Amino acid sequence: MRTYLDCIPCFFSQALRAGRIATGNEKKLKKLLDEIGRMLSDIPLESSPPETGMRIYEQVSAITGVFDPYKELKRASTEEALALYPALKKKVEKSNDKLLTAIRIAIAGNVIDFGVNRNFNIEAELAKVLKTDFAIFDYDKFKDHLDKTDEILYIGDNAGESVFDRILIETMKKPVIYVVRETPVINDVTYEDALQAGIDKVAPIISSGTSAPGTVLGTCNAEFKEVYKNSNFVISKGQGNYEGLSDENQPIFFLLMAKCWVIANDIGVNEGDIILKGINV
Amino acid sequence: MRTYLDCIPCFFSQALRAGRIATGNEKKLKKLLDEIGRMLSDIPLESSPPETGMRIYEQVSAITGVFDPYKELKRASTEEALALYPALKKKVEKSNDKLLTAIRIAIAGNVIDFGVNRNFNIEAELAKVLKTDFAIFDYDKFKDHLDKTDEILYIGDNAGESVFDRILIETMKKPVIYVVRETPVINDVTYEDALQAGIDKVAPIISSGTSAPGTVLGTCNAEFKEVYKNSNFVISKGQGNYEGLSDENQPIFFLLMAKCWVIANDIGVNEGDIILKGINV
Repeated sequence: MRTYLDCIPCFFSQALRAGRIATGNEKKLKKLLDEIGRMLSDIPLESSPPETGMRIYEQVSAITGVFDPYKELKRASTEEALALYPALKKKVEKSNDKLLTAIRIAIAGNVIDFGVNRNFNIEAELAKVLKTDFAIFDYDKFKDHLDKTDEILYIGDNAGESVFDRILIETMKKPVIYVVRETPVINDVTYEDALQAGIDKVAPIISSGTSAPGTVLGTCNAEFKEVYKNSNFVISKGQGNYEGLSDENQPIFFLLMAKCWVIANDIGVNEGDIILKGINV
Repeated sequence: MRTYLDCIPCFFSQALRAGRIATGNEKKLKKLLDEIGRMLSDIPLESSPPETGMRIYEQVSAITGVFDPYKELKRASTEEALALYPALKKKVEKSNDKLLTAIRIAIAGNVIDFGVNRNFNIEAELAKVLKTDFAIFDYDKFKDHLDKTDEILYIGDNAGESVFDRILIETMKKPVIYVVRETPVINDVTYEDALQAGIDKVAPIISSGTSAPGTVLGTCNAEFKEVYKNSNFVISKGQGNYEGLSDENQPIFFLLMAKCWVIANDIGVNEGDIILKGINV
């Protein structure tokens, strides 16, 4: 997905939100915003938003001196999600359509996103998403691909959300490779966060190599690109991965909640909608 | 009022909103945002937001080539307000407290603001504001000052809103000087807009000399500054004038609706609250 003009004010809001978690020093925060301002003319609208996100969050770290501002929030999100894990497992087991319930749970977990200016309550969101209609629902194609594949490449999005991903991975009953970010950026899931979520018990974990808050292939490492290129069934969670991969030419299923109206508009749905969308499938 | 860090993303949103009214050319709009970005490090947090607003809207005009993007919207707002004028006059006449009803009407008119990202419906807002409690209500002091003064300096805010100001001016039954902006900026009231609203029938109209979307004294002309300095009863409408005058040392009554949470926070009220606040009174 390209950068829309409306992403630009949001870049500043995001920098400020992350910066404030790192420091209360107003001079540093102003310097951070000034730096994003200076950077703006180098950001082409043809680039994807996570490419810019990467540069922004690098500045947050460089100027505030805090490498991982969301570290504690990520840890707490994962703990909160882990506390829900047993009840959610039961919900899947009791369900008439276990796979669909697990997909809904994985999408509900996508509400744990500190990059978007939106408060969230995981339990309330779970209850809602378990009942909401999908705005795009390529479920039959998803099941077909799942039947045929011998390996799923599952690209994670946020810390905490990974616990819900784990439930879907366990339900799919197929070999999965779980992909995390290389370095901390916003509350995106890293290797450490995936371990805390217990992903290692259900799938090997690899890093995409990126420090962008989304899968921007140009910023990924050779190992990931090789695995990705050879995959015939990619699950991409969340907005940042959608932004990076929406124009790709291979089969990808996007599981996400449209939390930002610009992305909702790009997909052709409404803000708040939930999506199971396959491309090239 | 100083500039808060949260004003910075809003500067970009405002530039984009105004720019889009002027042009659909995405390259020009990107150039506009790039220019605001370049300007950012020259904007001290000690300056007031309308000082920056002035520079932003100058860039909107310079880059899009449209001097007055809100011209047609302003004309239409004033027409809409004029259509309501007879019914509102009757409402004041029938009221037990004519002055208070006229104040409420003048504040409700403050909803006509294209600088704030908020849709509005004048009639619905009028109905609401006529019943809402004030968050700050210096009405007794206002009446005292009104009794004692022989001339009111009334600083207008937006086009259209001026029609409602006219009702308050007519109700106060004291000589009034009505102040407008020198040049078009957002939908702020200019001489031409005040004429369309019929202000000339009830008060002489002077320009503050500013092209800022608020009364920033450093940008005002000598004539206005002289009148202002000698005034013992200033009525300041709206957020932009509050931002410019909130730290002044002479008696001013602010009549406004807090449409932005940063300003609401500066005043110590909630977003959406209505205010009749006297300073140095």
